Amino acid sequence: MEKVIDFINVNRDRYLDELKGLLAIPSISALPEHRDDVKRCADWCGAEMRRVGLQNVRLIETPGFPVVYGDWLGAKGAPTILFYGHYDVQPVDPLNLWESPPFEATIRDGELYARGSADDKGQVFMHLKAIEAHLKQNGRLPVNIKVMLEGEEEVGSEHLDDFIRAHKADLGADVVVISDSAMFARGVPSICYGLRGLVYFQIDLRGSGTDLHSGIFGGAVANPAFVLAQMIAQMKDRGGRVKIPGFYDDVRPLQDAERQAWTSLPFNEKKYKKDFGIPKLFGESGYSTLERTWARPTLEVNGLLSGFTGAGAKTVLPAVAMAKISMRLVPDQDPNTIAALFEAYVTSIAPKTVELKVTRMHGGKPWMASFDNRFVQAAGRAIEKGFGQKPVFTREGGSIPVVSTFQEELGLPSVLFGVGLPDENAHAPNEKLDISNFHNGIIASAILYQEIAGVGEP
Amino acid sequence: MEKVIDFINVNRDRYLDELKGLLAIPSISALPEHRDDVKRCADWCGAEMRRVGLQNVRLIETPGFPVVYGDWLGAKGAPTILFYGHYDVQPVDPLNLWESPPFEATIRDGELYARGSADDKGQVFMHLKAIEAHLKQNGRLPVNIKVMLEGEEEVGSEHLDDFIRAHKADLGADVVVISDSAMFARGVPSICYGLRGLVYFQIDLRGSGTDLHSGIFGGAVANPAFVLAQMIAQMKDRGGRVKIPGFYDDVRPLQDAERQAWTSLPFNEKKYKKDFGIPKLFGESGYSTLERTWARPTLEVNGLLSGFTGAGAKTVLPAVAMAKISMRLVPDQDPNTIAALFEAYVTSIAPKTVELKVTRMHGGKPWMASFDNRFVQAAGRAIEKGFGQKPVFTREGGSIPVVSTFQEELGLPSVLFGVGLPDENAHAPNEKLDISNFHNGIIASAILYQEIAGVGEP
Repeated sequence: MEKVIDFINVNRDRYLDELKGLLAIPSISALPEHRDDVKRCADWCGAEMRRVGLQNVRLIETPGFPVVYGDWLGAKGAPTILFYGHYDVQPVDPLNLWESPPFEATIRDGELYARGSADDKGQVFMHLKAIEAHLKQNGRLPVNIKVMLEGEEEVGSEHLDDFIRAHKADLGADVVVISDSAMFARGVPSICYGLRGLVYFQIDLRGSGTDLHSGIFGGAVANPAFVLAQMIAQMKDRGGRVKIPGFYDDVRPLQDAERQAWTSLPFNEKKYKKDFGIPKLFGESGYSTLERTWARPTLEVNGLLSGFTGAGAKTVLPAVAMAKISMRLVPDQDPNTIAALFEAYVTSIAPKTVELKVTRMHGGKPWMASFDNRFVQAAGRAIEKGFGQKPVFTREGGSIPVVSTFQEELGLPSVLFGVGLPDENAHAPNEKLDISNFHNGIIASAILYQEIAGVGEP
Repeated sequence: MEKVIDFINVNRDRYLDELKGLLAIPSISALPEHRDDVKRCADWCGAEMRRVGLQNVRLIETPGFPVVYGDWLGAKGAPTILFYGHYDVQPVDPLNLWESPPFEATIRDGELYARGSADDKGQVFMHLKAIEAHLKQNGRLPVNIKVMLEGEEEVGSEHLDDFIRAHKADLGADVVVISDSAMFARGVPSICYGLRGLVYFQIDLRGSGTDLHSGIFGGAVANPAFVLAQMIAQMKDRGGRVKIPGFYDDVRPLQDAERQAWTSLPFNEKKYKKDFGIPKLFGESGYSTLERTWARPTLEVNGLLSGFTGAGAKTVLPAVAMAKISMRLVPDQDPNTIAALFEAYVTSIAPKTVELKVTRMHGGKPWMASFDNRFVQAAGRAIEKGFGQKPVFTREGGSIPVVSTFQEELGLPSVLFGVGLPDENAHAPNEKLDISNFHNGIIASAILYQEIAGVGEP
């Protein structure tokens, strides 16, 4: 391992230069105008996987964007890692809030700023460089590894479940490794053992055939923007609790031990508010901030659009109003069940004065691992060695739906080994990756393969 | 008058061609990128006023767009009309709903489609052509006339009150004539004796310094889009009544005679719903559709914007949310009083979890004329002769704030002599002007000058 770590230390600057090339590709899967960029990014990843020494590298087509696959299977008798990551990124709007162009990676104060730097290109690249270090220095890896990168994670991984089912035989492994999450805090490396699930909807209301003059019609016609506001206001009560009947039925209660463990985490509410510019925290009554984001479900408005939104004043009575609304789910809520409850509730509260259209966009199941899994423990040791510090064990509020799929379809446990930071601005302007974490993450990844090799068969 | 009317009939086609030129100028006062177009439109109007034979034509600068002024004062001893209109137009979004380009006037089925065709360029042009007909055929007008056209009506006539106060002496007259309203229905010419007032606000909420990941933060931070929905929902009750304390205090109750008169108007609720694609009418309990739009105040959401509004799904917890909200006022509500009540209420219902900014955009007073005014009666006779039909007397739901200013600053009554139609799509895509009404309107305008000349001094 010494040789491998030396190699990684020597190549620090090269890694950043190479990563900038990957971050320059605007592979925004949500926007049709970036279709070719997403494909170009898949090609880039395939070429890079060949460069680092992976074998059998190929782009496997799906009805959406291709999965980039490559492997190295020369470690006879050793365990096999299935590494999963994604090469697509979130949209960048509002563009005017970026301090440097989102697709020109820029270093400021030890951080690399670019869309995808943390979520997830930087963390994928970290593993490719750890693989490269082993192969260049030792000509081999201590484990077998199958790398699969998808291009639709940011649009709900629509075709991934089918892909995994169709390639069950090829994807056989002992453990899944994913680096698409954040550390608990700067300087506090962590292993994540739980994720929230997701259901995402668009609601469209129509109150008239065309926009109307708000003077001539105002007062006599339902205003779809107002009706939408009324409907949204009925989705949560004043205590932050979701009002959809049955929404909480399958929520697994927080265990006392878990609540206890979380209170000892170094969470500073004052700093949290300051860091994110939050005037006053708000959430479901009776729970702490960590409990609210890690172990309690929520309903959020992700977007609103109606009528005139430019500068100035236009006296229009809008014909239509639109909301994007998503729910984060916790074990044991099922996305299909919750989606049906949501649709029924929205339909029940929509007045007859508007036409309602409810569109389900995508979703994923919540997930929770068991602590004592030997791979989870191996990951803990790798992180401790890479970062010189014992990790804390956390859950996350975000969703990586594929983790449930790996469990259900392939019977594989997942190790969530993320080196992002809570203030990394994933999905927001000025996304960034801490360069030290990136570097230590490459070392920790290289050690992780060694540790997993040591764990061997159960 | 025979000669004048003959002239108008002979020149029918030319009028349309000329009007198309005026409608080709995208004089959208609300949008900074159309600043030069608005100015170009002022120049066009000035040139046209000279062409029709008006004198002393000039552009008078204001801190915003210029007022175009011209007069003909050769009718010694006859009354003086102050004609007011506007050469600016509303924005055109959503552009994709226009069946022909908004600034390429297009004739379909006897209607002239273009932004500004009805509101107000077409109706202004109607008077310029009536003036032209008198001057070309008789070398004189039966009355004195002062024409003033403003370029900021669609953005609240911000500088008009100051302008009128500053030019009191020059604007002296006996009556104001305005053609910026609609007939009650196709084939039912009307004189309007009441208008609603307006106050318009923008509300901005901020819940965090930047957009956040809805997974990582969802449930622990107030969602400004959700808070905005909650706040809007508190502005009106389920019966359509505005909940702002004191909002109805100064509302002049509807008189029985007025309610009675309106029930005899040819209003077809079924057709109204069908024409405007309205699933089910909705408004304040206890009032008919006409009463709701003409004699009752209302609060409307004119626009909503927050978070991700593109195609697809983005799991963002928005940093900010914006609403445009306006209120239509009736006698004797005062815009300043209502604005203060609104600001106080909005502030009182905003939770401390968000930063609130309330911006007052513009407003205008409601207005009501007395029936027996001799000029109003003269206008009724002109319309009857021009359209071959007795007019009905109506109020309107829209706002022309300058009508109150003319009353208060110059002591002048106004005659609202509009030839638009309720389905003209003012402020909406596919704005149109009925070509027969435009033509009959030119004749009626020419007759109106004659009738007002006959009324003379009181």
